[in-house]
Amino acid sequence: MDLPRHVRIREVGPRDGFQNEPEVIATDDKVRLIDALARTGVRRIEVTSFVRADVIPQLADGREVLRRIDLPAGVTASVLIPNERGLDGALELRPHFQEVCCVLSASESHNRANVNRSVEESLTGLERVITRADREGLRILGVVGVSFGCPYEGAVPAGRVLSIARRLVEAGAVEIGFGDTTGMANPVQVGRFFGEAAAALPGVELTAHFHNTRGQGLANVLAALQAGCTSFESSVGELGGCPVPAGATGNIATEDLVSMLHEMGVGTDVDLETLLAAAREVREVLGRPLGSHTLIAGPVDWRA
Amino acid sequence: MDLPRHVRIREVGPRDGFQNEPEVIATDDKVRLIDALARTGVRRIEVTSFVRADVIPQLADGREVLRRIDLPAGVTASVLIPNERGLDGALELRPHFQEVCCVLSASESHNRANVNRSVEESLTGLERVITRADREGLRILGVVGVSFGCPYEGAVPAGRVLSIARRLVEAGAVEIGFGDTTGMANPVQVGRFFGEAAAALPGVELTAHFHNTRGQGLANVLAALQAGCTSFESSVGELGGCPVPAGATGNIATEDLVSMLHEMGVGTDVDLETLLAAAREVREVLGRPLGSHTLIAGPVDWRA
Repeated sequence: MDLPRHVRIREVGPRDGFQNEPEVIATDDKVRLIDALARTGVRRIEVTSFVRADVIPQLADGREVLRRIDLPAGVTASVLIPNERGLDGALELRPHFQEVCCVLSASESHNRANVNRSVEESLTGLERVITRADREGLRILGVVGVSFGCPYEGAVPAGRVLSIARRLVEAGAVEIGFGDTTGMANPVQVGRFFGEAAAALPGVELTAHFHNTRGQGLANVLAALQAGCTSFESSVGELGGCPVPAGATGNIATEDLVSMLHEMGVGTDVDLETLLAAAREVREVLGRPLGSHTLIAGPVDWRA
Repeated sequence: MDLPRHVRIREVGPRDGFQNEPEVIATDDKVRLIDALARTGVRRIEVTSFVRADVIPQLADGREVLRRIDLPAGVTASVLIPNERGLDGALELRPHFQEVCCVLSASESHNRANVNRSVEESLTGLERVITRADREGLRILGVVGVSFGCPYEGAVPAGRVLSIARRLVEAGAVEIGFGDTTGMANPVQVGRFFGEAAAALPGVELTAHFHNTRGQGLANVLAALQAGCTSFESSVGELGGCPVPAGATGNIATEDLVSMLHEMGVGTDVDLETLLAAAREVREVLGRPLGSHTLIAGPVDWRA
């Protein structure tokens, strides 16, 4: 099987995960958990979001978290920036982060439901954010939600997704993440999509963000790897992700992703045992079982 | 992506699943659930096991279940036969089943832990069972457990697995299932294994039985499909499977398997909505949430 020898993982639990918890996690706990995740070998962490505190109270302490975390050299902190006001706020926190993440949805209905704007309005706003962030020397990641299907509109043409991605790249994004926001993707579709994306966006880092909504998250990872994708987003403990349909699981668990990759001989920089220890800390803080399989089963033991 | 156009699924929930439930399921419920599963389009069901009632009280009513179920034409009932005494008991129930399933483990320690016999002792005994069952006109499925790794011994050489399989075929088995009993398999290993198995066992139906222990079950299905495998075992609601390590999930859920296959354009004969209705009945009888993802999320809706 022809797979890449090494992939990059962005841990999105502290933003995507903590944001979706019903209870607000204490700032002290967030800082401790992010610092633990930053010592697993993972090189990229999405730390928080500069959205309005009244909209997402779970991340209202984002500034304090950014100031207090202590990331080892070589670990990049990303922050999600929804608009120029968010960027203004974030810029006061330099140099506590190095990367900004700008998100919109590929379908009109999903984008409207999320941010009450048309796709074109979102794109125009994000182009301004990206242009300014680029001038500030920040690395820019664009994320296109519902890239593999929209719960309101059904199929989303790959051409539409890639033309949105191209606009973000032209504005200054060096990486584009493609989100399977409600877990509609299947491996055949994923393989085809990443082939087309590589052809359409040469020189751009292409990142897969899969959900495990129907148990198919790691199968989609395998298909993306086979299509040459070398960058993935995932969430410790399977936290977060879009809870649509109600009760469904969201993001693939970083532990399960790392376990499968390592078992296949694909390197990640992450130490699975250290990651599992961090996941246990997350579970303790949240006080509930997490969706991660490897957290329960433990790593495969070939020495037995 | 080069995939088969159609695969066969054997539903193992009524045997592998019900056997692993802490509470014994009432015979009436078993009959009703099996009859519902038999009307989903699935063509093969593992109904029960002829083991000693004091060893597995959950299946002590196997004879009554077999007599009372009402399978539509074209749906095959399998029964698990551990030894000649089990076969003697089963033969009294002809023609209520058409297929026997004979299981052993590929590693000495796992086989010893399961049935307190060496692999050679199990093989010799099963060869007698298979020879007799073959003469009775029954279809014979051999299953080799821990084919992809043993929790006690670690790696299990493919050559050992395939030589055990060959013995079962020589005795009369027309199909061999390869069990990833504690979820140690990864897609690279699976792809390689099914390539070797097809070469080593020409003309034999080769069946993959994966567990979702580390979330990788459907990724292993994808790899097996790519290697030409067209036969799978799975369990409604993600019931059953080896609960080792403690608390770990076992079998892949039939709903998740069917959802992914259909989304990729691989046919199965199964109607997913009817299967989900049967899974909801199973959930109601067991009175607990099931591990199946698609049961919670529902099928992908492209008409939206």
